[in-house]
Amino acid sequence: MLIFIGSGICNEEDISLRGLNELKNADKVYLDSYTSKTYINLKNLEKVIGKKVELAYRKDLEENWEKIVQEAKEKNVALLVPGDSFIATTHVALRIEAEKSGVKTKVVPGISVYTSVIGRLGLQIYKFGASVTVPVHYTSEKPYDVIRMNKKNGLHTLIFLEHDVEKGEFVDVKSAIKKLFEIEERRSEKVIDPRDIVIGIARLGHVSEKIEACEARKMKEKEFGEPPHIIVYPGSLHFMEREALKLFANLKT
Amino acid sequence: MLIFIGSGICNEEDISLRGLNELKNADKVYLDSYTSKTYINLKNLEKVIGKKVELAYRKDLEENWEKIVQEAKEKNVALLVPGDSFIATTHVALRIEAEKSGVKTKVVPGISVYTSVIGRLGLQIYKFGASVTVPVHYTSEKPYDVIRMNKKNGLHTLIFLEHDVEKGEFVDVKSAIKKLFEIEERRSEKVIDPRDIVIGIARLGHVSEKIEACEARKMKEKEFGEPPHIIVYPGSLHFMEREALKLFANLKT
Repeated sequence: MLIFIGSGICNEEDISLRGLNELKNADKVYLDSYTSKTYINLKNLEKVIGKKVELAYRKDLEENWEKIVQEAKEKNVALLVPGDSFIATTHVALRIEAEKSGVKTKVVPGISVYTSVIGRLGLQIYKFGASVTVPVHYTSEKPYDVIRMNKKNGLHTLIFLEHDVEKGEFVDVKSAIKKLFEIEERRSEKVIDPRDIVIGIARLGHVSEKIEACEARKMKEKEFGEPPHIIVYPGSLHFMEREALKLFANLKT
Repeated sequence: MLIFIGSGICNEEDISLRGLNELKNADKVYLDSYTSKTYINLKNLEKVIGKKVELAYRKDLEENWEKIVQEAKEKNVALLVPGDSFIATTHVALRIEAEKSGVKTKVVPGISVYTSVIGRLGLQIYKFGASVTVPVHYTSEKPYDVIRMNKKNGLHTLIFLEHDVEKGEFVDVKSAIKKLFEIEERRSEKVIDPRDIVIGIARLGHVSEKIEACEARKMKEKEFGEPPHIIVYPGSLHFMEREALKLFANLKT
């Protein structure tokens, strides 16, 4: 059997009791070190679960996935995935291939950055439209288009900023906002207003977490430090959401 | 201090190690028994954390919230919340009131049904637009409007079906779909097509979990048993999503 276990947003303390039991019972444990950066302390984790943890990189999960599927035919293999499993297409593809090869799969959910960031800010989940990712070296105007679509309906946009762990590159809040202004200047569709309130989030849930809400024209100068970064681009804010941002995201207006 | 701890989608095994430590260290622990039904085994949990757990109902969280805030001025009070904290407005309001009274708050995220259901089905999170809740005894056409908006953009809709724990009433998959057909008949805006693929989910993550994808015209006859129920109403399905639904949601077409 192949067991996908979500490991949550920070370190090994985000793993659920159910996930921990599965790791203890597994014959082999892989840690996905490709789709997100992991902050798990391997030594601690190995001690708690009483076995070695093997790191799985892009080549292991996307090219040589047959090896993992083959192992799962004979023993219980656990794949520990940062965040919630299956938010990345990589895991969905691996699970499909496993099932098609006759390997049973099991899903142990984890804490996702998706709902954690919404809850942390006190925003309303019903007010979020489609989310979007800004990849490293991006040239597409998709993030602008998604914000336009959501704003037209008064909806908020959750913008994930890529952190390419293997290359050590990442998109920061500042440069993503600057890029949106550049597209606005070219297309002039009145999507990005310098006075829009936007929220920058860095290292959600970590001790060094930094969260700030301010106008877009100010956000493009702000430094958020180490990755990962996220942006929330609100549509229309409910008064309770605005109050929450004042208390939990240092909004000054 | 007032500490909000997400308890996850099923029972006490979904609590994270971080959440468990906070519960062990807290002076007083409440379990939210209002915003969702909890499947936590109280006896087990009390044994693990070494203290009594007090149930908090609607009146405790929405009317007499001052009592909890007052307690949190003098000691560490933990509120264990089904799912992820703050998905319900009740918790956001309580947190705002606590901070305004000078009580520090802390958030320990939990596993949310929101991302768990998307991952479980193998669908792509970027393809989800706004979500919506169908309340018990609903007359509003909001769910229809949200599906219309999302479908126009090719996006999926996550439809939460209310389970009123205190009154013991809930909305099931079948009746929610029937209601959508009634609105379609009246408004004729070609939003709900009898041949649309929809997905019914009951008791996500539980041993008795039931998941099925089929055409809407068939779904309105299906029984899903005990609550909670959820519907996913897809917009346009990517071929990999369709394949995932065949494998993980028993889609026949």
